[in-house]
Amino acid sequence: MRDFSADHRWLSLNTATLRKQGDLLEIIDACARHGIRAIDPWRDQVAAVGLDRAARAVRDAGLDLTGYCRGGMFVADAAHRTEARDDNRRAVDEAKALGAPCIVLVVGGLPQYSRPGSVLSRDIAGARAQVDDAIAEMMEYAKQANMPLAVEPLHPTYAADRACVNTTKQALDICDRLDPRRTGALGVALDVYHIWWDPELLPQIARAGKDRLLAFHVCDWLVPTKDVLNDRGMMGDGVIDIKSVRAAVEAQGFAGYSEIEIFSEGWWAKPMDEVLRTCIERHRTVV
Amino acid sequence: MRDFSADHRWLSLNTATLRKQGDLLEIIDACARHGIRAIDPWRDQVAAVGLDRAARAVRDAGLDLTGYCRGGMFVADAAHRTEARDDNRRAVDEAKALGAPCIVLVVGGLPQYSRPGSVLSRDIAGARAQVDDAIAEMMEYAKQANMPLAVEPLHPTYAADRACVNTTKQALDICDRLDPRRTGALGVALDVYHIWWDPELLPQIARAGKDRLLAFHVCDWLVPTKDVLNDRGMMGDGVIDIKSVRAAVEAQGFAGYSEIEIFSEGWWAKPMDEVLRTCIERHRTVV
Repeated sequence: MRDFSADHRWLSLNTATLRKQGDLLEIIDACARHGIRAIDPWRDQVAAVGLDRAARAVRDAGLDLTGYCRGGMFVADAAHRTEARDDNRRAVDEAKALGAPCIVLVVGGLPQYSRPGSVLSRDIAGARAQVDDAIAEMMEYAKQANMPLAVEPLHPTYAADRACVNTTKQALDICDRLDPRRTGALGVALDVYHIWWDPELLPQIARAGKDRLLAFHVCDWLVPTKDVLNDRGMMGDGVIDIKSVRAAVEAQGFAGYSEIEIFSEGWWAKPMDEVLRTCIERHRTVV
Repeated sequence: MRDFSADHRWLSLNTATLRKQGDLLEIIDACARHGIRAIDPWRDQVAAVGLDRAARAVRDAGLDLTGYCRGGMFVADAAHRTEARDDNRRAVDEAKALGAPCIVLVVGGLPQYSRPGSVLSRDIAGARAQVDDAIAEMMEYAKQANMPLAVEPLHPTYAADRACVNTTKQALDICDRLDPRRTGALGVALDVYHIWWDPELLPQIARAGKDRLLAFHVCDWLVPTKDVLNDRGMMGDGVIDIKSVRAAVEAQGFAGYSEIEIFSEGWWAKPMDEVLRTCIERHRTVV
């Protein structure tokens, strides 16, 4: 396991962590000020400043990317499926233009939430089947762009409204079904927030192996959690034994960045530089 | 699958559903008014009116019990383990006095939450090991009273603070380890709220079989969930396909009550009779 205590060279910032403090260009400037070498930008943040400007700013700053957030939201009724497919193809094009190493997929939950306007459904098994089909379809397009897809299992709390893929096992089952030969086209993005509770986590990380581990995200689970969406914790402030998860991932050969992604009204209310200073300190001490 | 549309003879009320509207004796009276034949009382509600009075009221009303809530909270540091053990033994004695068919076990999360005052830990694997040992110890005592224990897997949202047993598979693994011969001393209590999201739910219910299925609880998962603890939904108001879970449980031979347990600030604010009328209507239409 790599020693992170001496510097933060393996810290990547998911730009949602600062989404309320500034636009993507300001976030990139802040990363430069703090010696942060990599980011994972969100589509809406890229769109707000323009794809070309965003791509140029990333290049000019010499930043690595650790992903592009996010594709997915595949589950839709028939009337919204073309919209979902086309939207995901645009995500591939954007990721390519930015030079991202993969697209993180949040697959969607029930259709009325993942593609609003879709008819109401309680069929989560049906949603899961649709996710398989839609990832298979997206892979065809992404392969032409040589753009890997990283399925992110989301905490079961989000099963209805954000992602019906809720365990690492489930994400890896999809990978094995759609990419049995491990071509590199499909893998997983593991965020400790979503997976820390899973009694099968360590064997599933071993099953994933280096070639399926496309991204590793960190934050923390607070007790109590005041808001299921926007009360994630800074690393060290919650109950997750982050180092043990990173050790498991690195034992498989993962040698990439540790990406900080914190959705938090509390941290969004603080100045950008204070958040980044804290991220760096916690990266060195508890990640 | 039984037809619930014509009456509510298989409706049981978990008395936490009305905990803010009245004491246990008032809840029992209300059940009598509405033709509800069974309840599952909570220890604090029993203690508030006195064990003897509670037992007499249950008998006088001719009520069946579907469980006793709750034992568990096993995870503790060394200084709090005796307290946890003795507390659970008292739960067995009370359940026996009341004539309950089983004790529902909420096993506890990390020690600082399940037994406040315990030293802080982030070791969920250690918590799980402790749960195994403590259930084994409690079983020895419960067997003498011929009192079955029903392990309730809780939604992963509660992994840190309430229960580190978070899937049906995990609960059944405990049963198989501690009661491999399926003596009836150990089983599971399944609440749709906690398990509906689980991609392995149906095969695990089949694995459980009739002799492990000691209780079946219903409510609903609301989107959005405004409070992770006390914003559970009335059946039909959320996203759970309750009938499909009941069908799976009954396909294994489960023929007991369907127990309504709703922790909800919204429903706690309504009059007792309105809540029960709604429970009965939804029991007949969506359970």
